[in-house]
Amino acid sequence: MNLKEFASRIGLSATTVSRAMSGYPEVRPETRVRVLEAAEKLGYRPNISAQRLATGRAGAIGIVFQGGGRFGPHSSELMGGLLTRLQRNGIDILVSTVETEEEEMAAYRRLAASKRVDAVILHTPACKDERIALLQALNLPFVVHGRSEAEKPFAFLDIDNFGAIAEATRYLAGLGHRRIALINGDTASTYARDREDGYRTALEEHGLTPDPALMSRGEFTDETGFRLTQGFLALSAPPTAVIAGSMMSALGAMRAIRIAGLSPGTDIAIVAHDDVFPYLSPDNLVPAVTTTQSPMRAAGERIGDMALRLLQGEPPEALQEVWPVELIVRDSTRPAPA
Amino acid sequence: MNLKEFASRIGLSATTVSRAMSGYPEVRPETRVRVLEAAEKLGYRPNISAQRLATGRAGAIGIVFQGGGRFGPHSSELMGGLLTRLQRNGIDILVSTVETEEEEMAAYRRLAASKRVDAVILHTPACKDERIALLQALNLPFVVHGRSEAEKPFAFLDIDNFGAIAEATRYLAGLGHRRIALINGDTASTYARDREDGYRTALEEHGLTPDPALMSRGEFTDETGFRLTQGFLALSAPPTAVIAGSMMSALGAMRAIRIAGLSPGTDIAIVAHDDVFPYLSPDNLVPAVTTTQSPMRAAGERIGDMALRLLQGEPPEALQEVWPVELIVRDSTRPAPA
Repeated sequence: MNLKEFASRIGLSATTVSRAMSGYPEVRPETRVRVLEAAEKLGYRPNISAQRLATGRAGAIGIVFQGGGRFGPHSSELMGGLLTRLQRNGIDILVSTVETEEEEMAAYRRLAASKRVDAVILHTPACKDERIALLQALNLPFVVHGRSEAEKPFAFLDIDNFGAIAEATRYLAGLGHRRIALINGDTASTYARDREDGYRTALEEHGLTPDPALMSRGEFTDETGFRLTQGFLALSAPPTAVIAGSMMSALGAMRAIRIAGLSPGTDIAIVAHDDVFPYLSPDNLVPAVTTTQSPMRAAGERIGDMALRLLQGEPPEALQEVWPVELIVRDSTRPAPA
Repeated sequence: MNLKEFASRIGLSATTVSRAMSGYPEVRPETRVRVLEAAEKLGYRPNISAQRLATGRAGAIGIVFQGGGRFGPHSSELMGGLLTRLQRNGIDILVSTVETEEEEMAAYRRLAASKRVDAVILHTPACKDERIALLQALNLPFVVHGRSEAEKPFAFLDIDNFGAIAEATRYLAGLGHRRIALINGDTASTYARDREDGYRTALEEHGLTPDPALMSRGEFTDETGFRLTQGFLALSAPPTAVIAGSMMSALGAMRAIRIAGLSPGTDIAIVAHDDVFPYLSPDNLVPAVTTTQSPMRAAGERIGDMALRLLQGEPPEALQEVWPVELIVRDSTRPAPA
């Protein structure tokens, strides 16, 4: 049975059937369900090439990662969320890996030219990010996980990184901590710059001067958290509190504190930003870790949803969200030692 | 510049250029490098549609997951490995998520018909798996992560699940443990059946009778490890040792043991199967956990490699590997309490 025959059997136009089966919400949900059920019942299998020609759609959304070796727990939560949302519409994800930013730009050109994806998800943007201008020039719809400065509006979902780290820093300063260290990402990225700004702002509110020796940057891994915390502890005036950029960094930080013969939480307070990994709950660590919490999987789901809305014609400026972040106080933040 | 012009500029045939740029190793590596460098230098950007017509290749490998919500740390390590290997050849991964096995079968039919992927990676096979027969019937090249019974040979990479759990069980029995619990996956899957077989075999070697109350099945999550271990501890004759199917299960098991007022390692021995998550090292747990170790990321890299070889024409029967698993004894396996 071809498209025309199937459409006529169920009394709809070929265009409506194609749209319903393409996974994009251009037809009413009832129509989509009706078409899918009829296709199942009548054994109609759409010819994807014909369907693509009819709808001009690839049925896939792209995402590019720099370095397959760096595909880790954070990428995985974002992917899990995207997959969960896109599954409901039968949309696939095309994952490309490249080594450099230049190769990433080339990948977008390639994706746009080949029409293998209908939109892309861009993540970890820089404060000024040439990838955004490129995607706009290519007319390839995109949603950004994070924020950036750009002339033309674009769709994005970010969390309030400034507010999260400001609140964590304020809380520690309120407990009497005067030397508070920050394990941050690369401040060329907006999220890391926002975190540093939040940290500096809260310190200044408490009359504290940011000390460059207490501000370190690196990947959010156990190993890097360990190494950077060892660096803090080797200072002549070590910190009494550490803000870790992720749960992974916190694991390494706590290990370094223990190996130095100190007690995490009591001798050195810990706050971690928690992207909510189901296997790494701050409640299950000893001591339970105070966190700024924002589930990255939920963000991934919402970003998938925003991509579908964008493809349905919603303007990018209507698809901009900043999620608040919650400070959850647990046992790892005792008052500063007297 | 079109393909013909570019090929003539560098003195190669259009077919050779297309093959070199398609990412599949059908041309000599030196030729591929030469073509890519010339393309960069001369500003030649291949028209992917034309290139696909020329090579008949999509430049992507597919993988289907059941349930985006279950895309977790294990899927992530497999993906990370695949991405690392395929990046070297510029091959993308098309990820589809479905809810049921039936939908997964439909997804393969769709992928085969649409020619959007050149091969697929099938994972977590059942002992008898109709997906394998389907892929063979569809003539869609595939590599299985795991093993299964099938009439016709197929490419696969598996680890020695039987040997791993047999060795762990033998080691515990040798330490005097008589009641050894097993947290396993669904034994419809080959890996879980192999693990159970290894467990039973080792018990019988030591004259021990497998007790169904000590054999539990469930997802490899912290939560399920916790719940199943609480079940073991509530038995009138609780185990003195637990073999956890993954590091995630071990985390939950250790938590349940602690909450029961017991000491993991001393009161209840723990062995975990370790897929090697960079953020969850058995050395960093307290006590350091004895493991059967096999890095899933390395398996993913090798499976990516095998998919490329398959597409290059190597026969599936030449692409079958079973990796040994190493028992690494740490502090969590003390002799059984007297």
